[in-house]
Amino acid sequence: MKFRSRFAALLCSGALAALVPAVAHAAPDKALEAKFDALIDPALMGSWLKTMAAEPNHVGSPHDKANAEMTLAQFRAWGWDAKIEVFQVLYPTPKEVALELVAGPGAPFRATLTEAPIPGDESSTRTKDQLPAYVAFQGDGDVTAPLVYVNYGMPADYEALARLGVSVKGKIVIARYGAGWRGLKPKLAQEHGAVGAIIYSDPRDDGYSTDDVYPKGAARPPGGFQRGSVADMTTFPGDPTTPGYGSTKDAKRVAREDAATILKIPTLPISYGDATALLKALDGPVAPAAFRGSLPLTYHVGGGETAKVHIKVVSDWSLKPAYNVIATLKGRQSPDEWVVRGNHRDGWVFGASDPLSGHVAMMNEAKALGALVKSGWKPGRTIVYASWDAEEPMLLGSTEWAETHAAELKKKAVIYLNSDSNARGFLGVSGSHAFQHFVNQVSADVTDPQTGVPVRDRLRAGLEVSAAEPGANPRTTALGRIASDHARDLPIEPLGSGSDYSAFLQHLGVPSMDIGFGGEGQSGGVYHSAYDTYEHHSRFVDPGHAYAGALAKVTGRMVMRLADADAPVQRYGDFADTVAGYVDEVKKLAESRRDEAATRTRLLAAGAYRIADDPTVSRGDPAPLTPSPKLDFAPLDAALVRLKASAAGFDRALADKGAALTPAQRKTLSAAILPLEQRLLNEKGLPFRPWYRNLIYAPGRFTGYGAKTLPGVREAIEERRFDDADTYIGFTAQALTDYAAGLEAATAVIHGG
Amino acid sequence: MKFRSRFAALLCSGALAALVPAVAHAAPDKALEAKFDALIDPALMGSWLKTMAAEPNHVGSPHDKANAEMTLAQFRAWGWDAKIEVFQVLYPTPKEVALELVAGPGAPFRATLTEAPIPGDESSTRTKDQLPAYVAFQGDGDVTAPLVYVNYGMPADYEALARLGVSVKGKIVIARYGAGWRGLKPKLAQEHGAVGAIIYSDPRDDGYSTDDVYPKGAARPPGGFQRGSVADMTTFPGDPTTPGYGSTKDAKRVAREDAATILKIPTLPISYGDATALLKALDGPVAPAAFRGSLPLTYHVGGGETAKVHIKVVSDWSLKPAYNVIATLKGRQSPDEWVVRGNHRDGWVFGASDPLSGHVAMMNEAKALGALVKSGWKPGRTIVYASWDAEEPMLLGSTEWAETHAAELKKKAVIYLNSDSNARGFLGVSGSHAFQHFVNQVSADVTDPQTGVPVRDRLRAGLEVSAAEPGANPRTTALGRIASDHARDLPIEPLGSGSDYSAFLQHLGVPSMDIGFGGEGQSGGVYHSAYDTYEHHSRFVDPGHAYAGALAKVTGRMVMRLADADAPVQRYGDFADTVAGYVDEVKKLAESRRDEAATRTRLLAAGAYRIADDPTVSRGDPAPLTPSPKLDFAPLDAALVRLKASAAGFDRALADKGAALTPAQRKTLSAAILPLEQRLLNEKGLPFRPWYRNLIYAPGRFTGYGAKTLPGVREAIEERRFDDADTYIGFTAQALTDYAAGLEAATAVIHGG
Repeated sequence: MKFRSRFAALLCSGALAALVPAVAHAAPDKALEAKFDALIDPALMGSWLKTMAAEPNHVGSPHDKANAEMTLAQFRAWGWDAKIEVFQVLYPTPKEVALELVAGPGAPFRATLTEAPIPGDESSTRTKDQLPAYVAFQGDGDVTAPLVYVNYGMPADYEALARLGVSVKGKIVIARYGAGWRGLKPKLAQEHGAVGAIIYSDPRDDGYSTDDVYPKGAARPPGGFQRGSVADMTTFPGDPTTPGYGSTKDAKRVAREDAATILKIPTLPISYGDATALLKALDGPVAPAAFRGSLPLTYHVGGGETAKVHIKVVSDWSLKPAYNVIATLKGRQSPDEWVVRGNHRDGWVFGASDPLSGHVAMMNEAKALGALVKSGWKPGRTIVYASWDAEEPMLLGSTEWAETHAAELKKKAVIYLNSDSNARGFLGVSGSHAFQHFVNQVSADVTDPQTGVPVRDRLRAGLEVSAAEPGANPRTTALGRIASDHARDLPIEPLGSGSDYSAFLQHLGVPSMDIGFGGEGQSGGVYHSAYDTYEHHSRFVDPGHAYAGALAKVTGRMVMRLADADAPVQRYGDFADTVAGYVDEVKKLAESRRDEAATRTRLLAAGAYRIADDPTVSRGDPAPLTPSPKLDFAPLDAALVRLKASAAGFDRALADKGAALTPAQRKTLSAAILPLEQRLLNEKGLPFRPWYRNLIYAPGRFTGYGAKTLPGVREAIEERRFDDADTYIGFTAQALTDYAAGLEAATAVIHGG
Repeated sequence: MKFRSRFAALLCSGALAALVPAVAHAAPDKALEAKFDALIDPALMGSWLKTMAAEPNHVGSPHDKANAEMTLAQFRAWGWDAKIEVFQVLYPTPKEVALELVAGPGAPFRATLTEAPIPGDESSTRTKDQLPAYVAFQGDGDVTAPLVYVNYGMPADYEALARLGVSVKGKIVIARYGAGWRGLKPKLAQEHGAVGAIIYSDPRDDGYSTDDVYPKGAARPPGGFQRGSVADMTTFPGDPTTPGYGSTKDAKRVAREDAATILKIPTLPISYGDATALLKALDGPVAPAAFRGSLPLTYHVGGGETAKVHIKVVSDWSLKPAYNVIATLKGRQSPDEWVVRGNHRDGWVFGASDPLSGHVAMMNEAKALGALVKSGWKPGRTIVYASWDAEEPMLLGSTEWAETHAAELKKKAVIYLNSDSNARGFLGVSGSHAFQHFVNQVSADVTDPQTGVPVRDRLRAGLEVSAAEPGANPRTTALGRIASDHARDLPIEPLGSGSDYSAFLQHLGVPSMDIGFGGEGQSGGVYHSAYDTYEHHSRFVDPGHAYAGALAKVTGRMVMRLADADAPVQRYGDFADTVAGYVDEVKKLAESRRDEAATRTRLLAAGAYRIADDPTVSRGDPAPLTPSPKLDFAPLDAALVRLKASAAGFDRALADKGAALTPAQRKTLSAAILPLEQRLLNEKGLPFRPWYRNLIYAPGRFTGYGAKTLPGVREAIEERRFDDADTYIGFTAQALTDYAAGLEAATAVIHGG
């Protein structure tokens, strides 16, 4: 760490810059960062991407291992202390998959469960070793049953089906991707008694409606399908056979049939080409408006005996090695404070956009940091870089590592910085809100490749312009209003799930960030398909790999500044304000739930549905809604008052006195705030999912990837579990109070205590 | 009119019911209405429908004349004094139509501009005399030019095209139906320099997305297309060659090339089957999200030289006879006060749903009223029933009649009651708000055929249930809130255009209503096509013709009650409250326009669009918006104050003293309020369209059929014509003030003056 002294003010002014390395209260080292930037090389990242995406690289494949070894060799060549940590993870692969329409119009029809090569895309010709249509952790099976179309297969869709008098019990469902995470679709289907599930990609979302299909444009071609995991992640991520602990070689394993997060029914993903044939065979009620996708047919719900489908999935359920490459640069001042940064490396097939586009940025950061170390710099804190394996089946590499090293991470990890797919467009950062200001500062210092303005300015302009569009929704409008105040920071989003930060943030309580660019590069169309290739990525997603460079510069700055910061970069007022907003939301939610229940009761009592519904379509009233008691938010309100005061106290103290802290005080202060976020955890965890312990941020039980903030309270209200709502108001208030107490203790350190 | 006496209170209690015909202050005669209901015969209406829809019956066709003669004969047989009034109207018909893709992928391709017979639909086999694909009052022409896809062809779409750097100048546009009235599409195209226009029906709106296609279901089959008028109705409706006066035999004619409401460019409607081939040929930018229809292709905007289209339309521009059947039952007490009721009779092909489904209801009303007259009843006021011809080309029959009889109508017409297409579902009434309460009373007394509850109750339940759906928009939510108060009347909608009430309400100032059922019967799919047949209507739109019966009972009651009312049925407070709501809206609109202009200025100055927009797509900034001055609404506010007071004064006086009025007072009162609505007119009319004189209700310049209330003010604000906004604030305030003064004079009559 550079020498920081009482001369901070002078040094800030640059007067003594030549004599003493420029150090001030948490001021970034611009010269160091400029050197870093000069080592970021899009063409080099492109060549790594080409090599690593040359062959299928899913877990257990030869090329995944080769990529791990290449990554290891590179880190070592760049001067990092690097090794491979192997975990033995349950990673099922398909031995046999089949799907046929066996009865109904158009039968027999056999689905094509492989993706054909695309003219002009050389990678796609390498079909050996490609996984066919498959979703990991479905239940295997061989069943024939009538087919039902369940729209997105989300709870509201099952309510609609009930009102149409259609049941999925003993049937096979077909759902379209969207409106909720993939794994919820077969999970809810099986809870409703279905014996099999099919998920298809509707062209409105990422097929011909969005762009010309590949190879002419970026969109998903008619034979493309979306692989993915359907492990019940909302219960817990990671290896289903080692819940809550690492998948080390000798770890005790839960039997597959007892594994809570493995589904029970056979499930397959298919293309819209295949889906068309199945959907065309359905009779039964015409689908309600909300159920209608974009295929050129009249959507019917099915449910009768006309259309029958045979689905067969047989998997190899053996363990496979997951190779996490872990590389370290030891910190000089505080080697036991770690800045951890990761990106996964495994794909579903070639994985060019997902995940290698982010992985190569991480590699270039590592190369540059290594070069800076060689030329004399040393980070103040230890930097740990991780190339995760087995993220795609459900965050296995990072989760098993985090569970294995839980105690050490809780003691030492300052933050976890994650990236994954990256594309041309706008910076998107989600994470722990105490770091919101820090993110703003970093993004003001990196230049957008296309427009030449700081990436923060481009994001600000994007938010303002979107809000000015006619028909902007309330959230977009609110963001635009914030963005239009040029003195204000731009907000960051909360984290749900979907990448490797989950175990850190939601299980261990390590503050986390997820960082990436996107919004203009067209990667969605080939997501998790065999067409996510180097060729497709270079043409459509990040031409010239310019945004890989921008990502490396943003994340690299975060790493360097966090490693070298001699005073906290956090602004706890941002966290307090954000939580205050969430509390407001859950209060309004409680009110609206009460209104909905009251309205439903009134309308049922008046027979209004029977009078209003089309008698040729509807089959019954909707279910009554549990009346909502008035919830007592007083504990949360009180906790918020204290939190706001403590946060303001800390922020003010740091602003006033931060420059004058002694080295000893700085060390004590850093140690005091490191574990603060862990106070947001509750050992009991959330209802139905004790692995998720963070009471502020979690993935939603019925959104999957989408975040639910104050989840113990919010979801209890949404799902009308009012006893839980009361309980978790208490728990959450306690967590925030403990957090405030921790802030007060840290503040005392600043004041000289 | 029945004897009404000082014994009103006793009579209301029914005590003297046997001695004196039950008469009270405006109480309906339930016994009479029950007799009326007993004469309503769905099977009979079905047989009329079958006969009248047996052959193509567009203007000038033999069957249109035959239907007129049949209607005349029936009215006379039922005891009405009936005649045919003939007008000679410009009604162009196609001599030659052709559309081909002459260059681009898939060329050559020739569009099929006729509709083939449908198996099982016998009517559709009668292809002789069927009009091919055609829209009336397009400009004729023979051009070949590049093709551009303009989404709905509405103003916002041209703004979007400009930002993509795509111009339609010298090109042929293809637009999809929807988001604005048909005629605006070629009109705006020609204003932007296009040389031809094509309109197609996207399947998401009324094709396979909504239902199985005919004959399996009700939806528009791939070969079906929507005919219609494209006369510039928002400027004025009726015969383009006789603007503002009747198309009588010797009327002076404006030359076709000088007729303001005839378009200049050839335009044709096509099916989605044909549209697919044209749209597939387009290159150029991928269409933005808002432009994407439901066809299985990637929508491109075109605009380059790749896809070229040849369009040829040659019309016969001769005059054709329009046969209005006008039938009268002379009133006993007030023969010079007319209750006028109409429905058009001409279709585009067979016209079963549109318009004969409403016409047969009107006929059954006429039969029943005739029978009541034969058995002793005589209406107090004169009843005039009109079977209009030539509505489809743009309200020609009713407009020419109204213009011809303008002076007499202004003197004598109490109200105009209109119907048109009718279908299974919910009652919908739009019209003059002083009659809102009257509509509520009538609808409480008619039983819904499907549910057995009063139609008002069914509508109320429908509004409540819709509002309880997740994602209900603000308007739906507001309507639900009103509906949930079971003591409150349900609101009626304001009138724009689209059927024969327009000349009455918006040119002459005769209070008007448009009445019909719908929402469940699937008629949209075959709208204006050859598949709108008796077969389709009976299967899908109004099985058993039950709702024709309901319509007849609702409208029949309105006619009888208005003919016999011995005191006004109006509640002027409803009009005042409604106008107050509109004034609030325009004030908020002015604010939001100011905000939009300020935001646009700020974002342009900051270069925000250049920074935010995708540089591979966008070609330039949006246009600046005229800064909005602060408008002075004080004159409107003052007028509202007076209007509310006057309305309350009238309503209260009528409630208190109405029962005690002498016959002479009643006559004077009736005469005083008859012309009140005319005070809402301004001789200057609206900007750009002086024919539209009503300052409260008009069709929108850029919506077409959709109503714009306080149009002089509202549209001026929307279009940023702020001088006009000021002027029309003044005019509208004056109109409302004059109206209030008229109410005060009428109130004085009640008080004995």
